[in-house]
Parts: sequence; C-alpha cells; structure tokens
Amino acid sequence: MAEFELPTRPKPEETSAAAPAAEGETKNAAKNAAKKAAKEKAKADKAAARAAQEQAQAAAKEANDTAKHLYGPLPEAEDVTPSTRFTQLSEDSYEKEVTVVARVDNARVQSAKLAFLMLRQQGQKVQAVIALNEPISRQMIKYTGGLNVNSIVRITGLVKKPEIPISSATIQNLELHIRKVYMISEAAQMLPMQVKDAERPPPTEEKENEVDESGAPIVTLKTRLDNRVLDLQTETSQAITWISSGVSELFAEYMIKSGSRWIFTPKLVSSATEGGSNVFEVKYFKRNGYLAQSPQLYKQMCIAGDMENVFEIAPVFRAEDSNTHRHLTEFSGLDFEKTFDHHYHEVLGFAEDLLVFILTQLKERYSAQIATIQKSYPKAGDFKLPKDGKALRMNYMDGVELLKQAGVDMSEQERFENDFTTAMEKQLGQIIRDKYDTDFYVLDKFPMAVRPFYTKADPKDARFSNSYDFFMRGEEIMSGAQRIHNIDELEASMRSKGLDPTQEGFEDYLNAFRQGCPPHAGGGLGLNRIVMFFLGLPNVRLASLFPRDPQRLRP
Amino acid sequence: MAEFELPTRPKPEETSAAAPAAEGETKNAAKNAAKKAAKEKAKADKAAARAAQEQAQAAAKEANDTAKHLYGPLPEAEDVTPSTRFTQLSEDSYEKEVTVVARVDNARVQSAKLAFLMLRQQGQKVQAVIALNEPISRQMIKYTGGLNVNSIVRITGLVKKPEIPISSATIQNLELHIRKVYMISEAAQMLPMQVKDAERPPPTEEKENEVDESGAPIVTLKTRLDNRVLDLQTETSQAITWISSGVSELFAEYMIKSGSRWIFTPKLVSSATEGGSNVFEVKYFKRNGYLAQSPQLYKQMCIAGDMENVFEIAPVFRAEDSNTHRHLTEFSGLDFEKTFDHHYHEVLGFAEDLLVFILTQLKERYSAQIATIQKSYPKAGDFKLPKDGKALRMNYMDGVELLKQAGVDMSEQERFENDFTTAMEKQLGQIIRDKYDTDFYVLDKFPMAVRPFYTKADPKDARFSNSYDFFMRGEEIMSGAQRIHNIDELEASMRSKGLDPTQEGFEDYLNAFRQGCPPHAGGGLGLNRIVMFFLGLPNVRLASLFPRDPQRLRP
Repeated sequence: MAEFELPTRPKPEETSAAAPAAEGETKNAAKNAAKKAAKEKAKADKAAARAAQEQAQAAAKEANDTAKHLYGPLPEAEDVTPSTRFTQLSEDSYEKEVTVVARVDNARVQSAKLAFLMLRQQGQKVQAVIALNEPISRQMIKYTGGLNVNSIVRITGLVKKPEIPISSATIQNLELHIRKVYMISEAAQMLPMQVKDAERPPPTEEKENEVDESGAPIVTLKTRLDNRVLDLQTETSQAITWISSGVSELFAEYMIKSGSRWIFTPKLVSSATEGGSNVFEVKYFKRNGYLAQSPQLYKQMCIAGDMENVFEIAPVFRAEDSNTHRHLTEFSGLDFEKTFDHHYHEVLGFAEDLLVFILTQLKERYSAQIATIQKSYPKAGDFKLPKDGKALRMNYMDGVELLKQAGVDMSEQERFENDFTTAMEKQLGQIIRDKYDTDFYVLDKFPMAVRPFYTKADPKDARFSNSYDFFMRGEEIMSGAQRIHNIDELEASMRSKGLDPTQEGFEDYLNAFRQGCPPHAGGGLGLNRIVMFFLGLPNVRLASLFPRDPQRLRP
Repeated sequence: MAEFELPTRPKPEETSAAAPAAEGETKNAAKNAAKKAAKEKAKADKAAARAAQEQAQAAAKEANDTAKHLYGPLPEAEDVTPSTRFTQLSEDSYEKEVTVVARVDNARVQSAKLAFLMLRQQGQKVQAVIALNEPISRQMIKYTGGLNVNSIVRITGLVKKPEIPISSATIQNLELHIRKVYMISEAAQMLPMQVKDAERPPPTEEKENEVDESGAPIVTLKTRLDNRVLDLQTETSQAITWISSGVSELFAEYMIKSGSRWIFTPKLVSSATEGGSNVFEVKYFKRNGYLAQSPQLYKQMCIAGDMENVFEIAPVFRAEDSNTHRHLTEFSGLDFEKTFDHHYHEVLGFAEDLLVFILTQLKERYSAQIATIQKSYPKAGDFKLPKDGKALRMNYMDGVELLKQAGVDMSEQERFENDFTTAMEKQLGQIIRDKYDTDFYVLDKFPMAVRPFYTKADPKDARFSNSYDFFMRGEEIMSGAQRIHNIDELEASMRSKGLDPTQEGFEDYLNAFRQGCPPHAGGGLGLNRIVMFFLGLPNVRLASLFPRDPQRLRP
C-alpha cells in the first residue's frame, strides 16, 4: 500500500503517453503553434489524468482503509461515553480502555507504521502512540502524526505501562495506545508562539526573538501577554490561575464564616473624591462620571448603614501612569470593613488571622500547583509563615529601628512625613525574614502624614495613626486603618489634608457620619499582589488573567 | 431638686434687686440718660448675676448628680466588656446585666422620673427604660430621654420581663432597665428622613411629601435612595442586603464545589465589540477605552485557555437609557462558562441545578430575613420552587404554544424573529405557575434571530439555537447558550449578524478559536434581578446597595 502515501505525485508510466506524440514536428511557426497547442492539450490531458488518478486513489484508499471510521472529523452519531480526565489516570488504569479529550502538544510520525502524540490537558502531559496493527491503517497513522499542534482531539485508547518512564510527559508512568482519534477543534498550522516555549519563564529583561542556551526560543513577557490565551494553557499559568482562584475563595470563606455580609458597591461614581487624582473619567450619558479607585467610602457608608461587617471582591481602577513590575491599572481588590467594640486592634487581629488563614490554606489546598510553579520560579523559595500561626506585628517605629540597626537611618522628617521607600521595605522584609523566620508581617501605627484623610490619628500621639500595612516578602499587600467616625474630627482631618468638606461629591459620605456612625476599621487587599508575592513571581502581570497597564488594554 | 430642671430661667427674688434703685428719677433728659445708663448697668448686673447663678447651679448639679459617671460621653478609660448582640438576648437573659451598642430609634421623656428609649440594632428593636432610682438621677433621665434619634449609644442595663409584650419592638418579650448610657456617635437633630418611616414600603408611584391614611409620612423611593445610608438601616433593607449576600455566597459555593475556577476578567477593554452599542466610554490615558458590557468574550477566552470551568462575580456596565423598574446601568453579574463532552444540555442541567440550589438554600438559610421582607412586600407571596427539586424545562416553542392556548397567538414572524414581549413573558409566567406550580423555569431553543452572534445554531433546525433563558416569576434572570467554537462557523455567524470579523477589537477573541477551542456553554445571571424576583420586590433599585441608572449616579 506504499503508493497511497504520495497521492499527488503521478507515476511516470501514466503521464508519459501524450508527450511522444508532440515530439518530431519542429520546422516552422505553424509547426510551433501546433506544437504549442499540442503541448497545452498534453498539459490538460495530464491534469485530467492526474485528477482521475487522484479520485481513483482516494476511492481505493477509502475502500482499503480498514480504519476509516476510527479517525477524522468527530462522528455525528452521539457517543455518550464520558471522557476521562488525566488526573483520573493511574497505574490502576493499565490495560483499560479510556477516552480522553486533550490538546495535541506535539505530533510526530516516526515511520509509516508508527506515530507519537504528546497530549496536553490543563498543562498536564500524557504520551500517546499509534502503531500499525489491525484495524489501524497507515492512513490513520499518517493522519495522527500530522495533526496540527494545539488541536483538540478526542482519543480512545488502551492505557499501557511504558517500557521506560516518559521523561517528556508530566504523567510519566503510562502511555495511551491509540484506537480512535477524532478532531474536535483544529488549530491553525501556524501559531504565534508554542505553548511549550511559554512553559519556561520569560526573560527578566525584554528580549525579542532570541533563543536560550539550549537553542530553544525565548518567549518574552510581551509576546506571552499578547497571546495570553495560548499562555494560559501552560502548566505554570494553569497553576497560577488556580492560586488566584484560591485566594478569593479563601477570603470569601473566612469572611462569610465571620458573619460578614458580601457587598457590591458602585464602580461608577459621580466625583473623584478619594484622593482626587489618578481616576479614570467615564462618559455617563450627558455628564461625566468616574471609576471608583477603591470601595473605601462606600464600605464606610455600609458601616454607617448598620451592616457592621462587610466585604467586597471587585475590580479596582487606578489611572496611575506607573510602569513597574507591581502596578496594574485594574486589579482585583479584596476589601473588608468591620465595627469594633473597644479598640481597633480587634479588627487588626481579625485581619491578621484572615491572612494567616489564607496563606496557610493555600499551602494545604494547592500544594500541587505551588510545586508546579516553583519549577519555573524557584528563586524566591517557599513562602515562610510564622510558626505559631500568629502574625508578627510590630510598630512602624520598630521597623525604623530595625533598619537603623542595619545602617539605614531615616531623618526625623523622613520618619514622620515620608514612610519607607520601596527599597527600604524590601530590606526590612529581608531583616525580618532573617530575624523572625517569616515572610508575612504587619506594621502598625504609621505616621499620620502618609495616610489618607479618613484615617484615625493615634489619640496618644497625633504624629502617628491607628493604621497598619501588611507585607509579604517585604512588599505591601494590604493597607488599612481605624477610620474617623466623628463628623467634626473627619472634617478637621480633611481640612488639614487640604481637602474641602463642602466640595461637591463629599456630601453623601459626610452625611453618613452626621447621622451617627459606629467606630470601625478595615483594609483593602490586592489579590494579584498576594498571588505574586506568595509565589515569588517576578511580575504582577503573571498574576492577572488579562493584565491592564498604561500601555496595555488588550487582549 | 425641681428648680434644676430649668436652669436658664432665674428665680424672681434673685433678679429684682437692681430694679427698684433705678425707679423714682423721671423728670429731665439728664435724668433720662442717667436712667438709661442705670438700666444698662442693671441689665449687665442681671446678666452677670445670671451667669454666676448658672455656674453655681451647674456646680451644684454636678455635685448633686449621683449619676454623673453613668452617662454622657464615652469614658476614656478602657472598658473591655464585650457588648451583647440583640440576637443573643432571650428569656434566659432575664435579670442579667448586659451591655449593648445600638441606635436610638426613638427617645421619650415620660416624666421627670421616667424616660423610654427604643433601641435599634440592624433593624431589630428592643425597648429600654430609665427610672428615678438611686443612683439614677433626674439629670440622667433627662439626658437619656433627650437623646437625638439615630445616635449610637452604649447602654448597660438589666434585662427584665415586661409586664405586657412591647408591641412596638421587634423583640417583644424583654426590656432593658438602664444603668449606664454613653454616647458613641451623636446624630444631628434633624435627619432628612426617619428610619422608621422608611420601614414602610415606598409608594408604587412617586409622590412627594405626602402622608398615608394613618397620617404617617410617606417616604418615596427617590428620598430613600437619596438617603440610602439611613434607608439601609431599616429592618427590611437589612434583610434584603443579607439575601443579596446569600445569593453570591451560594453561587460561589456551588461553583467551587463543581471544581470551577474563580476568574477576574478585565472591565476596561479596548473596543466595544459585544453588540457594539450601549457601552460606556472611558478616557484611558491618551486613548479611549470602554467598560465591558459582560465578561462574555473573556470567559470564552478562558475556556480557550484550557480553564474548562470558570465563574466570575463582578460588576456589569450597560449604558442603556432604560428607565424601568428592572434596569440598572451597573449591576452585579454572576457568570459561568463550562466545557462539555457531548451535548450542551450537560451545561444546561448544571445551571438548572445551580439555580435550584441557590433558591432552595436561600429559603433554608435566610428564612428569618425572608419573613421580615414579606411583612413589607407581601403581595408576591412565597417563591414557588419545583416540588421534585428538578427545574422545569421546556422549549421556546412550547411557551409559544402555551400562550396560544391562552389566546395570545404570535405570527410566524413574531415567533422566529421577535421573541416574547415583557407582557407575554409575565403572562407565560402566570400560566406556568398555574399549571406547574413553580415560579422558576427554563426555556430552551430560542430563535437564532434574537440571540447574539456567538450563539450556536441548532444543528437540526437553523431557525433555532442551542440557547436558553431562565425565568423567575415570569421575568428573565439568566441568558445562556452553547457558544460557537469553530472559527469558520463563528465568522459566518458574525457576518450574518452584520458584524465584520476583521474589525479591530475582534482579533484577540477570534484568534482564541483559530488556536483550537473546546465545545462550551454558559450563562450570565443578574444578581439584583434574582433578589428582586425571589422576594417579589417592586423595583430592582431596592435590590442594589447604591443603585445606578441613567438619572442616578449618587450617593
């Protein structure tokens, strides 16, 4: 059956018949014209013969193909066999027939009698093999080995123990001996990048179209993000998106268990009140609106509305022209706000336990994903949590002191008016890791000068405030505070920050306090930053499904 | 001690001393001038005497006030007694001393020896009484009875069984005998509306400043929403916001249990692709962006990114100039998207079970809140769920037939090109309720002409589509469908809907299908509508914390 392998190349004896008839007439123009006509006729004859030949071959092939119903387009007839997940496969599956739906990660024809597929399902890889053996035909082997990479196929096969572990697969102790291959969704022949090339971490500096030491293409972060759907298919991206899902799940779980109410505050607001700058403007019918920079004022209005304990999971918008590894213009905010009885440390303690819960449970519930991600990003190492299950808390001034001991001395003005620089924060993170063996800690009592107007000053020392930041690996993931609940104090604080309480837009917020509001505190977490620092990812964009920054508004 | 009750009115014998000296000189101008000066002196003397008198009285009062440390501003000294929630009080609390933090719903001085407070905590009301009885002083009674309504106080008192149930309270079988009253947050004397007047439902038509049959003020929906923080304090609003929280909690719970991944897709997008109209424009640095009308295209891109089963809880933005009882310009969307093996009914069945789970569990977990809301909105009655726990599903054409039997005959064109009108939907809801005893049902196989471009046509009859709507009380709460996953079919569908696949903005979406995408289906639920129709609320704005419509962008 070897001739069927090259159906478009006709055999010599079948195409030479017309040619000799045209030769031998070579003397004048008429002869030339006749020759030309004859040549054209010969050409046409040849083409007709070739088409007939191909049709005959196809028919013959169809007739001879013992496997013709075992591959190709997915049959119309309804097959109700449920497909098996790769995660369900084990040594118990040996010698059993299973049906899987997976992507073609790689396809290779070894010979006319043997082809290999690497199958991929949510980043997990299993090898499949097809060999000539009734009813498997050579045509079926050719079809299978020639599948376009990234196509989605439905394969039925026998699970076998391989002679040696399949080192290129993630599931190495089994392979699939193919019996059926149907196309579910065919990928184009050319892809903008190969998923397997995106399995390796992007270069820390952007380089275009280079190869690494082993000669494999380097795919830059930009290329990945431009082709994010392909990039999401990697084992690492699959794991990261699970961690992100897990953080919000754990946040909601803890809040709900605490009796908190899930709220949805408006993102379309009438004025740029909170801070004033860095806010996106929206055309709202015949007027202007803005995108909320945080749910801060609305969370507080819910507290004034007697809701006592509330949380929100929602996008946060920042029109900040920051092009760094840790800034996004849209990110996922995890916010909470809570009344307290006597002291804001009731809420601070609650928030510390929340974070310890999230980080501890991430390790417990997502250990497989964490291990996967560490293969690509091993540098940061395991995230260290406090051994006793209680968050490490110190005052801002203790942090200043630790830095001073390490040779970083802040001036009086720097201490009370500037807060730490990012470099100082990172250094402090390292000092605390070395000294206390934890990557998560809390700083309390920040200088009043560096906090927003609604922050409660420390009643014992007005240079400080009842506010706190949470840190992971030396970078901030949450900012929070006791809020001012007394209207006179609030208006005075606004004035001292250069804000005018009578300005349009503050009215609804301030009325909430004029009508009585209980003492409360809260905080806002950045989901993407938690994921980034927990995993030690080099860039927050890797922790966002479709990241947005000043340069990027797609895909 | 009766004289201390009116300290600003001096006694006659103390103020008459200066007056007689000025009398008897009445003959000339000098005399007149002298008289005037004398009068002024007398006035000044009087004022001085009065001030001295007041000071003396205040000191005497202070000295005599046996209760002076039992009321007034919250003492600085730290009291670590945890406060008791109203929900923790019961007959077991009789004769026990408790401390509560609550709002003053009403304050009334009965006599110099007796005053009453109605206390309110998240809408729940408990009566408190204060009577003259050592060490309680008349001053303390006056202070307590004169508290501004809506102020937040910290009260310590003895729980007592009242002689007769307190009919105006929600907790009627106990009252609090006050021992201490401290101010936590004082409300202004004048409030734009009384919370108790907002306990009654708003009029169905907007009327300004009217009173109802009993003479009580009618508070319109507009007034409530303008003063939403006060409105949230009512028992009914408290219950509604709990139901809203519950719907999202139950949605997330069910999705997570099904192995779904929580996603956060961007709300800032580069082009107005989905449908094209009714989209808010955003100034995005030096270019234009838009607010996503739904996560539809991104959910599908996540599926193409091998995420298999995803859900999102996020705001949805619609720049639609619809001023109806059920439209908002920003609402909370509950979205899901899921691959399937053989038939989209796998996903449809999943979604039906999701809704049955949410609605059944709402009744189970939030029965108290539902009962509270029904006091204000009794008209719609209990929400009826299918008895067998399985959703009622029929085809669109079955709905057409039911309407026909009821005398509403749609023309051939109406059937295939128009879909039901809102009136028809409501009538069909009533027919189905009467016939099948359920307020929740599903219509499958909508006409292709009324569905968006990404909807999969019914392979057996191209006039129809593999799409479905979910209804509660005859109004749509979810729209969903199998999506086209084949790029050629998708491009053809776009063209047939008048869309150009080569238009900028579609590129990233279409590439996802060029690179292979599994068959999938999904849906998008409107959280606010679920709450509204489940509870039978007359307006969707009551089911949104801070509603947004074309006219309203505040509070």
